[in-house]
Amino acid sequence: MSLIVTGTIGIDTVHTPTGKAEGVLGGSCAYFAAAASFLAPVRVVAAVGGDWPLEHRAVLEGFENICLEGLQHRPRSRTFAWGGRYFENMNQRETLFTELGVLEEEPPPVPEKYRDSEYVFVANTHPEVQAGLLKHFPGRKIAVADTMDLWINIARAELLDVMGQVDGLVLNDSEAEQLTELSNAVSAARKILELGPTFVVVKKGEHGAVLVHRDGVATMPAFPVEQHQVVDPTGAGDAFAGGMMGHLAAVGMTDFASIQSALAWGTVTASFALESFGLDRLAAISRKDIDQRMRDFQAAARVG
Amino acid sequence: MSLIVTGTIGIDTVHTPTGKAEGVLGGSCAYFAAAASFLAPVRVVAAVGGDWPLEHRAVLEGFENICLEGLQHRPRSRTFAWGGRYFENMNQRETLFTELGVLEEEPPPVPEKYRDSEYVFVANTHPEVQAGLLKHFPGRKIAVADTMDLWINIARAELLDVMGQVDGLVLNDSEAEQLTELSNAVSAARKILELGPTFVVVKKGEHGAVLVHRDGVATMPAFPVEQHQVVDPTGAGDAFAGGMMGHLAAVGMTDFASIQSALAWGTVTASFALESFGLDRLAAISRKDIDQRMRDFQAAARVG
Repeated sequence: MSLIVTGTIGIDTVHTPTGKAEGVLGGSCAYFAAAASFLAPVRVVAAVGGDWPLEHRAVLEGFENICLEGLQHRPRSRTFAWGGRYFENMNQRETLFTELGVLEEEPPPVPEKYRDSEYVFVANTHPEVQAGLLKHFPGRKIAVADTMDLWINIARAELLDVMGQVDGLVLNDSEAEQLTELSNAVSAARKILELGPTFVVVKKGEHGAVLVHRDGVATMPAFPVEQHQVVDPTGAGDAFAGGMMGHLAAVGMTDFASIQSALAWGTVTASFALESFGLDRLAAISRKDIDQRMRDFQAAARVG
Repeated sequence: MSLIVTGTIGIDTVHTPTGKAEGVLGGSCAYFAAAASFLAPVRVVAAVGGDWPLEHRAVLEGFENICLEGLQHRPRSRTFAWGGRYFENMNQRETLFTELGVLEEEPPPVPEKYRDSEYVFVANTHPEVQAGLLKHFPGRKIAVADTMDLWINIARAELLDVMGQVDGLVLNDSEAEQLTELSNAVSAARKILELGPTFVVVKKGEHGAVLVHRDGVATMPAFPVEQHQVVDPTGAGDAFAGGMMGHLAAVGMTDFASIQSALAWGTVTASFALESFGLDRLAAISRKDIDQRMRDFQAAARVG
């Protein structure tokens, strides 16, 4: 089944307690597409500016299942850029700078050949852009959106509009609490269901994820990694969403049990994403590595 | 197989954002024994004072698999008492008062008929008392200890001595970090293995638990509960340990795979413990309820 994602392609600068990476390939769309591509072909709708390094394009082209026809180059614009710094425990970070660049311009066009996409993911960006993208896919089987604290703060009405249109919402635990004023992930997610979605996935970083669906509740730990393995958590949440949507597109299902299984694939792809700055680690592995880690994860997270 | 626990029987006063309970039955030993008793007979070694309400004894006697022959009454002493207040999100609490009472006196004696106990749990108390208890069971199959921040601070040497004697250590994530200065639960647990134990279980409250064993690593989410179901988290960690040790004693095993399974039983018993103040909820359920929740948990925490 055809999977499409829209979101950001960014130039990231990341400081961690043990290292620093400048000008690396990042953005929600890049991490999502890289992760999803191990499971299903994925189409990208995004824009970059004249400062975008060719080597970043080469990285994305290195993933055989990513279609870049919907990646628009705008020579006179600037690429979205983000800088952040992680604190000692890697669970918290501060944003050092954000240069919106192309994100302040018109959203990128959707190629005609993408119009038959059935699995639609609108990664984190302004909810108005998300709503605009969704309009292109009236025949979709499933639409899922990500969001972030910024939009909850400054564009809540537009975000509520998006929530009324999508089947699923993916967000962090802190964002779920911000949106609902409930600290319990299950209760927060259930309250969000009242806003429209059929299911909500609350991402808890190193503590895993919770799925609250009209048909049931599922919970999953993160893949157990050692401290030294966590090189850079940037994009892990997007890689999680990518693995999740990639699995759904691969099996062609959208029911509760399939979404529950999809969480495990998201957990596995996210666990690779944080092992390097940028997409380095995801670019270095194959489907075989994904499958092996899934077996390791199933063994480590066995219940009963 | 015979399971024994030593620890505190307390009179608790608990404030939560939505309620208050004064003078309820508490203490690590009480929660542990109640939880374990659904899975295996459990022997209690503890002491209470002249102020101990008979109705608290009646609660413990209501659990058919708890042996109270090792519960010593000291009419001229005071029962251990603890008061605490939970903050809005129920994940953090402050201690309002601690009256050590009998804990400042000689440890309770171990009945002669308990000497053949093979599954030994030394719940949270002074590490010297823990070490003293362990001496009574030279032929044990497995010994597991709990601990807390207080002993890490004021009795680290004695605690290290206990760690050299036990097979397993159970502690909170904050305590694991305090002991090792590592915030990552897996890395912290692995460092604790160097101090002697064969395995370490890091309890993460609403985020579940991680097992690091010389033979492998396991991870498990908490049972997904809604905010309104969490009445009082006091003792949930002790109930977790009770379910865990109860399962091991029931199956007569101590290997990695059995401990991994035991985590699930601990998760289930802990999930009931927090549904009421004191032991009210555990006292109201039967083995059938435990088994049903285990099936619900296995369904909710399925991976792949």
